[in-house]
Amino acid sequence: MSSPVTAPNPAHRAARAADLQPRYAETRAGTLALAAGLSPEDCALQSMPDASPVKWHLAHTSWFFETFVLEPGLPGYRAYDPAFRVLFNSYYVQVGERHPRSERGLISRPALAEVLAYRAHVDQGIARWFGAGARDDALLDLLELGVHHEQQHQELILTDLKHLFSRNPSRPAYRALPARPPAGQPPALEWLSLPSGVYEIGHDGPAFSFDNERPRHRAYLRSFQLASRPVTNAEYLAFLDDGGYERPELWLSDGWDARTAQRWTAPAYWEYDAGAWQVFTLGGMRPLDPCEPLAHVSYYEADAYARWAGARLPTEAEWEALAIRQPIEGNFVESGALHPLPAHGPQAQTQLFGDVWEWTGSAYLGYPGFRPAAGAVGEYNGKFMVNQFVLRGGSCATPRSHVRATYRNFFPPAARWQFSGLRLARDA
Amino acid sequence: MSSPVTAPNPAHRAARAADLQPRYAETRAGTLALAAGLSPEDCALQSMPDASPVKWHLAHTSWFFETFVLEPGLPGYRAYDPAFRVLFNSYYVQVGERHPRSERGLISRPALAEVLAYRAHVDQGIARWFGAGARDDALLDLLELGVHHEQQHQELILTDLKHLFSRNPSRPAYRALPARPPAGQPPALEWLSLPSGVYEIGHDGPAFSFDNERPRHRAYLRSFQLASRPVTNAEYLAFLDDGGYERPELWLSDGWDARTAQRWTAPAYWEYDAGAWQVFTLGGMRPLDPCEPLAHVSYYEADAYARWAGARLPTEAEWEALAIRQPIEGNFVESGALHPLPAHGPQAQTQLFGDVWEWTGSAYLGYPGFRPAAGAVGEYNGKFMVNQFVLRGGSCATPRSHVRATYRNFFPPAARWQFSGLRLARDA
Amino acid sequence: MSSPVTAPNPAHRAARAADLQPRYAETRAGTLALAAGLSPEDCALQSMPDASPVKWHLAHTSWFFETFVLEPGLPGYRAYDPAFRVLFNSYYVQVGERHPRSERGLISRPALAEVLAYRAHVDQGIARWFGAGARDDALLDLLELGVHHEQQHQELILTDLKHLFSRNPSRPAYRALPARPPAGQPPALEWLSLPSGVYEIGHDGPAFSFDNERPRHRAYLRSFQLASRPVTNAEYLAFLDDGGYERPELWLSDGWDARTAQRWTAPAYWEYDAGAWQVFTLGGMRPLDPCEPLAHVSYYEADAYARWAGARLPTEAEWEALAIRQPIEGNFVESGALHPLPAHGPQAQTQLFGDVWEWTGSAYLGYPGFRPAAGAVGEYNGKFMVNQFVLRGGSCATPRSHVRATYRNFFPPAARWQFSGLRLARDA
Amino acid sequence: MSSPVTAPNPAHRAARAADLQPRYAETRAGTLALAAGLSPEDCALQSMPDASPVKWHLAHTSWFFETFVLEPGLPGYRAYDPAFRVLFNSYYVQVGERHPRSERGLISRPALAEVLAYRAHVDQGIARWFGAGARDDALLDLLELGVHHEQQHQELILTDLKHLFSRNPSRPAYRALPARPPAGQPPALEWLSLPSGVYEIGHDGPAFSFDNERPRHRAYLRSFQLASRPVTNAEYLAFLDDGGYERPELWLSDGWDARTAQRWTAPAYWEYDAGAWQVFTLGGMRPLDPCEPLAHVSYYEADAYARWAGARLPTEAEWEALAIRQPIEGNFVESGALHPLPAHGPQAQTQLFGDVWEWTGSAYLGYPGFRPAAGAVGEYNGKFMVNQFVLRGGSCATPRSHVRATYRNFFPPAARWQFSGLRLARDA
Repeated sequence: MSSPVTAPNPAHRAARAADLQPRYAETRAGTLALAAGLSPEDCALQSMPDASPVKWHLAHTSWFFETFVLEPGLPGYRAYDPAFRVLFNSYYVQVGERHPRSERGLISRPALAEVLAYRAHVDQGIARWFGAGARDDALLDLLELGVHHEQQHQELILTDLKHLFSRNPSRPAYRALPARPPAGQPPALEWLSLPSGVYEIGHDGPAFSFDNERPRHRAYLRSFQLASRPVTNAEYLAFLDDGGYERPELWLSDGWDARTAQRWTAPAYWEYDAGAWQVFTLGGMRPLDPCEPLAHVSYYEADAYARWAGARLPTEAEWEALAIRQPIEGNFVESGALHPLPAHGPQAQTQLFGDVWEWTGSAYLGYPGFRPAAGAVGEYNGKFMVNQFVLRGGSCATPRSHVRATYRNFFPPAARWQFSGLRLARDA
Repeated sequence: MSSPVTAPNPAHRAARAADLQPRYAETRAGTLALAAGLSPEDCALQSMPDASPVKWHLAHTSWFFETFVLEPGLPGYRAYDPAFRVLFNSYYVQVGERHPRSERGLISRPALAEVLAYRAHVDQGIARWFGAGARDDALLDLLELGVHHEQQHQELILTDLKHLFSRNPSRPAYRALPARPPAGQPPALEWLSLPSGVYEIGHDGPAFSFDNERPRHRAYLRSFQLASRPVTNAEYLAFLDDGGYERPELWLSDGWDARTAQRWTAPAYWEYDAGAWQVFTLGGMRPLDPCEPLAHVSYYEADAYARWAGARLPTEAEWEALAIRQPIEGNFVESGALHPLPAHGPQAQTQLFGDVWEWTGSAYLGYPGFRPAAGAVGEYNGKFMVNQFVLRGGSCATPRSHVRATYRNFFPPAARWQFSGLRLARDA
Repeated sequence: MSSPVTAPNPAHRAARAADLQPRYAETRAGTLALAAGLSPEDCALQSMPDASPVKWHLAHTSWFFETFVLEPGLPGYRAYDPAFRVLFNSYYVQVGERHPRSERGLISRPALAEVLAYRAHVDQGIARWFGAGARDDALLDLLELGVHHEQQHQELILTDLKHLFSRNPSRPAYRALPARPPAGQPPALEWLSLPSGVYEIGHDGPAFSFDNERPRHRAYLRSFQLASRPVTNAEYLAFLDDGGYERPELWLSDGWDARTAQRWTAPAYWEYDAGAWQVFTLGGMRPLDPCEPLAHVSYYEADAYARWAGARLPTEAEWEALAIRQPIEGNFVESGALHPLPAHGPQAQTQLFGDVWEWTGSAYLGYPGFRPAAGAVGEYNGKFMVNQFVLRGGSCATPRSHVRATYRNFFPPAARWQFSGLRLARDA
Repeated sequence: MSSPVTAPNPAHRAARAADLQPRYAETRAGTLALAAGLSPEDCALQSMPDASPVKWHLAHTSWFFETFVLEPGLPGYRAYDPAFRVLFNSYYVQVGERHPRSERGLISRPALAEVLAYRAHVDQGIARWFGAGARDDALLDLLELGVHHEQQHQELILTDLKHLFSRNPSRPAYRALPARPPAGQPPALEWLSLPSGVYEIGHDGPAFSFDNERPRHRAYLRSFQLASRPVTNAEYLAFLDDGGYERPELWLSDGWDARTAQRWTAPAYWEYDAGAWQVFTLGGMRPLDPCEPLAHVSYYEADAYARWAGARLPTEAEWEALAIRQPIEGNFVESGALHPLPAHGPQAQTQLFGDVWEWTGSAYLGYPGFRPAAGAVGEYNGKFMVNQFVLRGGSCATPRSHVRATYRNFFPPAARWQFSGLRLARDA
């Protein structure tokens, strides 16, 4: 959430509202576009407790605007259905009761059509609220937060659907994916060096960020090197072929336990069939492309690979120190590829943004001086600051406008259903 | 499955076919009628591993006819989709691979519409098969088995939906249920006595039965008494109010463990709200009717209640010895009540059939001389003969033509999602 | 427990006491003899929730006499330690609180020496009670029950120790076992036939039995045949070599699930090493003797073997109908073999008693007219009458005087740590 | 492990050996002193997978010297028992197979007496090795590591025994504890301020440290304040009385889940009885002393308390920045108190060392430039660098000579069986 440093004033507020209204509309339409063509069943099922049904994402993102903007800010607003207050609350204990996360797949009603009507009801409310002047900075902050929140759920719609479809024996495709560039060689890996010293890390200024990106603070970094691109499938195959999944000395102790309990023998979505690796994508099964960035590995696998490679994962500060000077270009959701692509074009110099989220070796904790946002949205990030690791850079399922060099994504170390890969680092 | 004793001959076969064809059609239509008005989401969700999605029931019952009648019996029949062979096989290992039962709720595709097309495809095949003369007794046996099999799944559609809807915080109704008779007193409980001696138990003759009802055999019974009707809610409430759920001395040891682990404090679907017991029905929530037969208790609860009442559960042989002379009348699915009703009308003299399945104290085992049916359908009943108890009599969700005095239903002792109640017995 | 039909009178009572006192002493000494030579650690550990530490067995059997005889029957008796009332209560809820079964291995104190002192304290109390005249028939009943109870725990001491030692990588021996007879051929399997008719089953008369053996009652049996000896290791190896553990069609559904979850590939205590089967015994590891009766299989394995062999398990009534006319001779604990032996000598005609408990196909339920014993000891048997199967005949770890033709042992179908084998049966 | 910067030479090596030999002897004797008076049963039991039997600790610490010093370094050394190589290997995969951690309580043999003989055998070997000149610096490093390793296990002997005894309903005492000072007021809490800037963190130089304390590196710290003493029981009671365990908004999300799953309502070892809090200690149960430092809380509870108190946990760098200038004085294991004491005497100014380990808000990760030690001992620390948090300062169960200002202890955030408390911090 933004922490504006400029004093609010009516003109500034009107300008913000004029800026936000089309972004709201665009984001809301974008979510619907992702769900277009899906059946009610596709939208209703939950394939694991970590994932949610598409219908739930459609409703919860609307609940967010209803709860945090319309109920406090639009006089006379009538909730679409009071029961939704519980049903579509994700985890905000200060808002009230929540339907259990693991039971989101037990809700056949409201039907998809009704959830779409709910979305329209909320959109109409927001339009009225904008029309009435949107005279409250705090509510504008919350609406802006809601837009970024909905972008996060856009990515989850894709990753949760991918997981769901992967559990279907027929491995159905979400969509026909565009033709891919002919396979080639990825650019040679180079090492980019940064010197030791005190760096400024984190977000500052009036532009939007999540609270966990703040405050900007100083961190001392030893000189280090980062790889010029993420690890590719070909490189990871060398690890695999070298017995990577059979050698406990390469793994963290908890990682080895996870590999054993979950019987990992390759990244998620890889299947060995008839002498060759296939990979499940949002377009269905296809042969593994060795030139693509590796995706769908856990922190444990990323860490084991880096150890095997004689390197390590970067810290998030190291990553940011490099990224802060790079343009935010890359293979985002707007490309339509919906899958990582071999490095190409301008961003290929570093491939820091898009394609795959990159696991860092940094535990997800509050920055020095961190303060959660006030009110219930203070639960947005802060209460998850344990047992997770930070990922950086965005993926092929992330909206481009959602990403920043300071952006901190986070997942537990065993999570594999995101487009998560890695980049090597080493001490200089 | 029937084991005809008469020698098959063409005329007999033609008569059987003429009898079975309309029964097939009626049963198939009946299944669709149960699903009418349900949304695709209603039909796709799975609320627990014991229950299956409606869509799965619709498909699996068709798979049964396709696998056991059309593939072996209709030359040139083309499977609707070869993948369905795995996807909709429930547990027949001799047929081949099976999709895991607990993952039936992960299948968004085929969509409901496609499953309905699959049903129509199978129905057309069966019509062609009948049209071609149905010249094989064994296939007629399998088709008849398939009709009874589908009736079982009709009941499961209702009980599985009830469970699913109960997990929705809004407790939606499956259908508006008909007006119920005004509350009154159930008939006074009387004790019906039967003398000691050797009884003939089990099914015999050419008429259809499942293999587990055969062979008819002799059993020596001591003189005993059976209650003239099942236990009512009012009676069970007295047990509950007497601390029935807090007194381990009333329970089997495993029963007490189940009650503790699952936190049972009342039958399934009972909810205490604002000083009164409510009960969830296929028509939604409504006040508990004390005159109704008790339903949705486990074997453990039935057993504890009987012990508290100074009685016991009947054996299945005792139950059958009484039932074999009673007409099969009662509150079956055709009444549309979809809920147990207080005893009334002609069947009220014993209320042995319909309303609720009655737990017996008999473990589900093969009868003396039991032989499973030949082929894969031999897996239908025999391989479940452990860790289950026999229930008798049919329920308000059972088709009337499905029930016999010799019919043996069976469920694990902790199961509560069926319409399961009990009748008291005692030694004479 | 016995239900004397003769009217009690002082002379009879004195005779009973005179009979019981040496049996008490002998049984108590027998228990200590089993524990002789064990270290305090050997006696303190619990290797799984189903098994108990030897120390616990030593204490619990004493608790039984203290609780049911001394406290009600010996004026002025002072409990050794009031805390033992909870600590060594196995499962009698009517006696009061119980220490959880699965935590019996967390009790380092009282030490073994103190438990032995507790035993002596109780023995002294019982001696005083006998000395004072033992004037109460009900207490004599309970003392006699306690003697049989302690015999059961003698067997459990051996089977629980065997399980514990099997979990030690060094596979230590409990004792050096006597030299075994030279390997030979087991007697050829013959089929013993019994005719159909009404049989009297169960115990009657004043002599001791457990309540679950009563009342004697009639059962109609169809003509049947029983094998003349239990299944041998050689016979079971043929099942194993024929893919017995890989063919689900041979197994009960729950049995296959148990085999899969617990990764069974052979009976318990079998280990394949260097091209040959070894077996863990109370004397340590040694080569598998093909002529021995098979032991340490679950009900599921026994059932699958019988199906593979084209036969079935006997019912307990069938077994008893044959056994009731046989002398109770066989390889019991007194032989010191502590392991099943190939059939030899007089009992080899049927080998019904000793060597291995034989799984029957009968679920463990109350007999017609069953009434649990009065008071807390009514919990002894009745509350376990669910989810278990009856075994008959006694084993190489059972005291000879403990066994009767009517004796009903029972265990859950997945249990394997008892000396449990099987005998085939078939319809005539 | 030390990373000597001085070039090794014979004179230096001899001096090291002369220094280490008595420290070895003293440490080995100290371990035995902790086990003195315990019964074989006390030493054999395992109360949870996280804890180990005393006997295992006695053996494993000997295994360490045997494996890492005697086998490579003492020509002609004969292993006491080759089976111990597996049995007492904790987690060193590069050494070979390991007996599973959760099964350490299943080993009745070797008996305690034999483990003590094993210890003596190893001690004799080490004496011979010293006598032969100890001419290898790397082996001296490993021996020194073994001494520190054994000190860690000394602490675990106490905390594991405490847990074991707490599971015994009689709550036995390990030892009679010395009289405690009369209850008084703890010193008032003051805030100690440190300025912002770049600090040097971690160990450097030739003196021993674990590899995870190295390398010394720079960290930028914002100005901050640390409390002058740990949180007391009285202060924590105020949190508890304010509904601390019932208010999810005070907790991390994972913490709330742990509290719910494990039913935490107070710190470990607290019991509410007859209107007052009692606490289980190594001397048995006694009333809770409000002036003592709080102990036996998880990271989650520490974090929730700090949030409730309007403060936060210190980072480990903050803690070290203060501690590096303090004398290492405090209530360590040598005091014999075996329980935290209210602040008193010289160390009361900060109470940074002894009494309780203090949870920091720092995830346990490698320092910048971290390199695990070479060889199998490289598994000592590095492979646990995930899902754990750093604790600092030592406890009443830690040997004084084991602690340093740079010492990093680490446990998972739900662990409570160590003497773990907390100190508050806040931004300046």
